[in-house]
Amino acid sequence: MNNFQFYSPTEFVFGKGTENEAGFYVKKHGGSKVLLHYGGGSAERSGLLGRIRASLQASGIAFTELGGVKPNPRDTLVYEGIALCRKEGIDFILAVGGGSVIDSSKAIAMGVPYAGDFWDFYSGKSPEAALPVATVLTIAAAGSEGSGDSVITKEEGGLKRGAGSDLIRPRFSIMNPELTCTLPPYQTACGATDIMAHVFERYFTNTAEVEITDRLCEAVLLTMIKETPRVIADPANYQARANIMWAGTVAHTNIVGVGREQDWNSHGIEHELSALYDCAHGAGLAVIMPAWMDFVSRKSPMRFAQMAVRVWGCEMDFSDPAVTAAEGILRFRKFLHEIGMPINFAELGAKAEDIPKLVEKFGIGDGRTGGFAALSAADITEIYNIAVNASIEKLH
Amino acid sequence: MNNFQFYSPTEFVFGKGTENEAGFYVKKHGGSKVLLHYGGGSAERSGLLGRIRASLQASGIAFTELGGVKPNPRDTLVYEGIALCRKEGIDFILAVGGGSVIDSSKAIAMGVPYAGDFWDFYSGKSPEAALPVATVLTIAAAGSEGSGDSVITKEEGGLKRGAGSDLIRPRFSIMNPELTCTLPPYQTACGATDIMAHVFERYFTNTAEVEITDRLCEAVLLTMIKETPRVIADPANYQARANIMWAGTVAHTNIVGVGREQDWNSHGIEHELSALYDCAHGAGLAVIMPAWMDFVSRKSPMRFAQMAVRVWGCEMDFSDPAVTAAEGILRFRKFLHEIGMPINFAELGAKAEDIPKLVEKFGIGDGRTGGFAALSAADITEIYNIAVNASIEKLH
Repeated sequence: MNNFQFYSPTEFVFGKGTENEAGFYVKKHGGSKVLLHYGGGSAERSGLLGRIRASLQASGIAFTELGGVKPNPRDTLVYEGIALCRKEGIDFILAVGGGSVIDSSKAIAMGVPYAGDFWDFYSGKSPEAALPVATVLTIAAAGSEGSGDSVITKEEGGLKRGAGSDLIRPRFSIMNPELTCTLPPYQTACGATDIMAHVFERYFTNTAEVEITDRLCEAVLLTMIKETPRVIADPANYQARANIMWAGTVAHTNIVGVGREQDWNSHGIEHELSALYDCAHGAGLAVIMPAWMDFVSRKSPMRFAQMAVRVWGCEMDFSDPAVTAAEGILRFRKFLHEIGMPINFAELGAKAEDIPKLVEKFGIGDGRTGGFAALSAADITEIYNIAVNASIEKLH
Repeated sequence: MNNFQFYSPTEFVFGKGTENEAGFYVKKHGGSKVLLHYGGGSAERSGLLGRIRASLQASGIAFTELGGVKPNPRDTLVYEGIALCRKEGIDFILAVGGGSVIDSSKAIAMGVPYAGDFWDFYSGKSPEAALPVATVLTIAAAGSEGSGDSVITKEEGGLKRGAGSDLIRPRFSIMNPELTCTLPPYQTACGATDIMAHVFERYFTNTAEVEITDRLCEAVLLTMIKETPRVIADPANYQARANIMWAGTVAHTNIVGVGREQDWNSHGIEHELSALYDCAHGAGLAVIMPAWMDFVSRKSPMRFAQMAVRVWGCEMDFSDPAVTAAEGILRFRKFLHEIGMPINFAELGAKAEDIPKLVEKFGIGDGRTGGFAALSAADITEIYNIAVNASIEKLH
């Protein structure tokens, strides 16, 4: 096990009706003048924003609003938010939405006290200060409600990049699974895929003997495999929604990743897809993650055999663990197909002829990247190629 | 799933050599005048205290020392610590040790700013303030390094009671598994048993459909079942020590308990044993926990069958789940026996004739207590009776 630091100071307030406590928790965590940041019209139409405004008012919290966050959140709105916060003297940002809104809020939070361009933090610089951020979560997916991470897309050129700091871990996150019960099956499945990917990126590691982290990974995956088909079949199933929502948080505070090297190539390879086609991140992951597994398992089948046995319930083939590994990956792809996810380029709306452009934008040149398997540009090309024709009928 | 709040703001600093960062982290978390609180001579002899003093000095942190914490920590030393902190103007308490030292530190932390008797907090009162507490952990067991709980024994009369508050969650916990490599097998096994008990107290619940919490419980248990025999056989095995140490923390931040009713009767029933005989808490749990399982599973076998299959790898007996449940409990008792724990009164040094006194001190009168199974005084008597003659040869 490698040395590690684990710090997850977010206060999670979970369950029915908890959005009505937003004002109480803003006050508890020191906010007095809030930027209420959100996306499109659904939070308004559902009455959620109304309940949050009422809660803030009841606690005597002043607030300014900025809506309009889009999926794959853009730098342009971040700049607007930073200017607004400075003008209004905002001291606390409350994100109401999913990962996009939260990530946009985190970017604004780092940008407000910073004299330079906030994009510096998405180009490798560490922030020294940030406004406090908190969330009212409406989609189980990104895990941003409990993480110190944020991903923003540069409107000009479509560059999608991440930033990370303990300073942008939310002070509190209000999580009412009822708010996710109206989410359509496709978006629900995209979220579930993202949650599982956050675990897999940490599960595939070369650091040996970290049994506790392995088992915690498997706990989240087993939960997702049980609960996701239940919400696809019955979107209003509160219990299944609740399990998925909390699993999504556990998947990304990094408690399922500590003590070892991680990978994250699938996320990177996918980001080029959602940047180019503006597809849902989860849908892109459904196409890329099993393709990455296909490719990487050829050299390192044993971790995939472990996944197959412990997570997908496969029988171990002791004479040829690669067979078990392949069976596990096939079951993952079938699972994704069954919950309505695309599993190849055509189903996603991606084009094979764009692959050179995708690899070019991934931008590793002659280098290699990735914790579990260090991939070259040629390897990444091959993974995109696997994804073009992937099917549930056969292994690649 | 029930509504819940989960808040674990402790910064965990895990791995080899991390005790040398004690000064850095005290400063980071705002301490300037520290009470260094510890137990007997082993922390001194091993050089650990010397390294911590050097680290504090290097960071310019002033400190006062109070040693002498005993297992099952006493109120008398807590009073002494409170007086010392007030006299010296202490603003931060650094516990160096295991659960006893940490719990004593937490009691002092609550007592310093409180005008009344600190024992009030161990009699149901909630604190409104506490000095910040942090830890350098030397034993994997109590989970107190990541919890808001503390258990103290009143010297006069041997009353053992708990207190809980987010205010006493450690600000940081330094966890170097190397420090536990010299711990003798018996104490190691006591710690492992305590860790497993912290999970079981949360695993047995009547709240349905909390799959994620079930799976996280099982993750910790599976880890303990794999790693504990490895350290008993090879005490210096760093990897196994590291897995156990982190599992012990995960077992008690309450992440394996959220969203549902918990039980905690085994802890309560055991506390009377360690209060009367001054035995190790883990050893008492090894005697009581399986006895509690024997008794409770008679009425509710299905949760125990789940434990048997998922945790102990038993085959499910679909015609009679009670058979599977009993097999799982027997395997638990065999596991405890194999790691060197007592499994009955004689092995612990307890006496059957004391049972009426133990039940009397447990003090529920005509009432009932417990989340999974509401037990009467007669039930608790029966559990003690099961524990008297328990063996690994047969089920009760």
